[in-house]
Amino acid sequence: MKKTTIKDIAAILNISPHTVSKALNNKPGVGEEMRQQIKQTAQELNYIPNIFGKGLSGKSSKTIGLVLNVTTSPSPTYWYIVTGAEEKAGACGYNVMLCNSVEDIQKEAAVIQMLLEKRVDGMIISPVDHPQDNHNLEKVKQAGIPYVLLARTIHFQQHPCIRLDSRRGAYLAGKYLIEKGHTNILHLTRQYSLIAVEERIEGLKAAFHEKGLAFPEENIYRECQETIENASYVMLKILRERRDFTAVLAYNDVMAFGAMKAVHECRLRIPADVAIMGFDNISFDEISLVPLTTVNRDFYALGRAAVEMLICMIEGRQNECVPALPDSYIVERQSV
Amino acid sequence: MKKTTIKDIAAILNISPHTVSKALNNKPGVGEEMRQQIKQTAQELNYIPNIFGKGLSGKSSKTIGLVLNVTTSPSPTYWYIVTGAEEKAGACGYNVMLCNSVEDIQKEAAVIQMLLEKRVDGMIISPVDHPQDNHNLEKVKQAGIPYVLLARTIHFQQHPCIRLDSRRGAYLAGKYLIEKGHTNILHLTRQYSLIAVEERIEGLKAAFHEKGLAFPEENIYRECQETIENASYVMLKILRERRDFTAVLAYNDVMAFGAMKAVHECRLRIPADVAIMGFDNISFDEISLVPLTTVNRDFYALGRAAVEMLICMIEGRQNECVPALPDSYIVERQSV
Repeated sequence: MKKTTIKDIAAILNISPHTVSKALNNKPGVGEEMRQQIKQTAQELNYIPNIFGKGLSGKSSKTIGLVLNVTTSPSPTYWYIVTGAEEKAGACGYNVMLCNSVEDIQKEAAVIQMLLEKRVDGMIISPVDHPQDNHNLEKVKQAGIPYVLLARTIHFQQHPCIRLDSRRGAYLAGKYLIEKGHTNILHLTRQYSLIAVEERIEGLKAAFHEKGLAFPEENIYRECQETIENASYVMLKILRERRDFTAVLAYNDVMAFGAMKAVHECRLRIPADVAIMGFDNISFDEISLVPLTTVNRDFYALGRAAVEMLICMIEGRQNECVPALPDSYIVERQSV
Repeated sequence: MKKTTIKDIAAILNISPHTVSKALNNKPGVGEEMRQQIKQTAQELNYIPNIFGKGLSGKSSKTIGLVLNVTTSPSPTYWYIVTGAEEKAGACGYNVMLCNSVEDIQKEAAVIQMLLEKRVDGMIISPVDHPQDNHNLEKVKQAGIPYVLLARTIHFQQHPCIRLDSRRGAYLAGKYLIEKGHTNILHLTRQYSLIAVEERIEGLKAAFHEKGLAFPEENIYRECQETIENASYVMLKILRERRDFTAVLAYNDVMAFGAMKAVHECRLRIPADVAIMGFDNISFDEISLVPLTTVNRDFYALGRAAVEMLICMIEGRQNECVPALPDSYIVERQSV
């Protein structure tokens, strides 16, 4: 099917294409009645404005690219980020294009390239956890469009970034567990050296130091992936080797579910034999084997704040914009 | 920062812009060594090909738009669709742009318009549940680009569509519950008259009719939203009014979790007092209050199949392409 052009609309209304263009771009020189008639005709003919022309002439396409980095069986936290981002963007008149790098540096390169080609006004990127410096980010920087890194970063301090605090959340969790009488705690965490991993460890240690206690390195297990299945597997392995601990703090709620499943399978009681604490406060915490005590983190606010920060950059109002993120707090249920 | 153009590359290599263009577009008339040198220079300068030009000249941008329709606290099934779709698209050399219509007809219009403007090669759309005919879909049709509707449709039989079967899954669930001795079953389902809602009811009734039993209309509760919170609220209301039933089949696992929470709060035993059965088989089923017996549905395969179908349409090979979706089956855990 042939696409409708400005010429088609002009021919139907028996006016010049120039008049049609002026009307559709809200420029002066067309009477209001004619403008309405032109717009209505354009709509009836399904006319699609030539945004390529807009892109080439440097005008905003009012589109933000959001590059997530989610593998299978994810924590629903990603969807809270997306929801917050879309709501804020919508309120500011922007659309969001979502891409997923699937923790793969080449895929990340491809989606960033695509977003550059599609002339987005800016990007929010949750970068791939890459041991060397991430050249994909350099590419975005060199393309000269505004961008904000999301949620996690360690090697990339030279980039604008927004994320939820991990240190204070883990400090609160450690303090809470100590108050509940737990001083031999395992920390089940991720494989890679994300800043979010290190900050949680720092926060946990700080809570212990405050009480004159040490947090031994051998209580930190860094081998866990973010799935129930893997966390359960790792926890079962630990339970075969030692049972001297009375509590587990997991990197996030999904890992806590895995630990819970393993403890349950070993016929240990939660929290009487082993207390389990999560991190994030996702909706499934309410209905887990034992409803999960956790640290609330506001990913919805993170999504909103990232978009706010990016739009300020796009519109040249960086200095006006200091998005505030709410503090973490403990949500008591029944697992501690 | 100024964007790199073909002229910049030509100036550096001291050749004509026309040669650069031929090399970058893989056209004949450039020696292999020079072609490689031009491509390398383009990469070093972060040259971004002018996809707007490509769009205007009708060439493929190798991009698929995927319009989801997810509100807050979603079932993770959506992410399985995305993962399957991205994997299949990637294997075929396509990128995926994801948008969310948030069950809002105006937002759906905006994202479809954006994807048309960005010149995607085709779209996969999970349409908004709109009581009247959805004009957004007519717009896509009239734009003349290939599209496939995903997962649910009732008013839109005139559009190409792929989705998982609901009838057989609900038939299997009904048969399973009857075999376990349950003949007074409540069905907790969604508010709107999606075909997926009606087909589950048909399947459930068919299992009952097969055994010479009727399934009374008053056992069907159509007032539920797809969140744990709402399903729990609805179930508590039911439990205050009647306790004559021995089992609940929920529209999906998230609603089953809500029902489970309500039954648990009323200090009824699962499954001894009330059996609970879900639909979908999401990862959290393994760690719910009582691990959830459910119907497995392969959303990952659905995502892959939708992309396969769309790419066949884009590439004019419709007739070669009949994507097969795996059958539903019962996953036995401990809630029935």
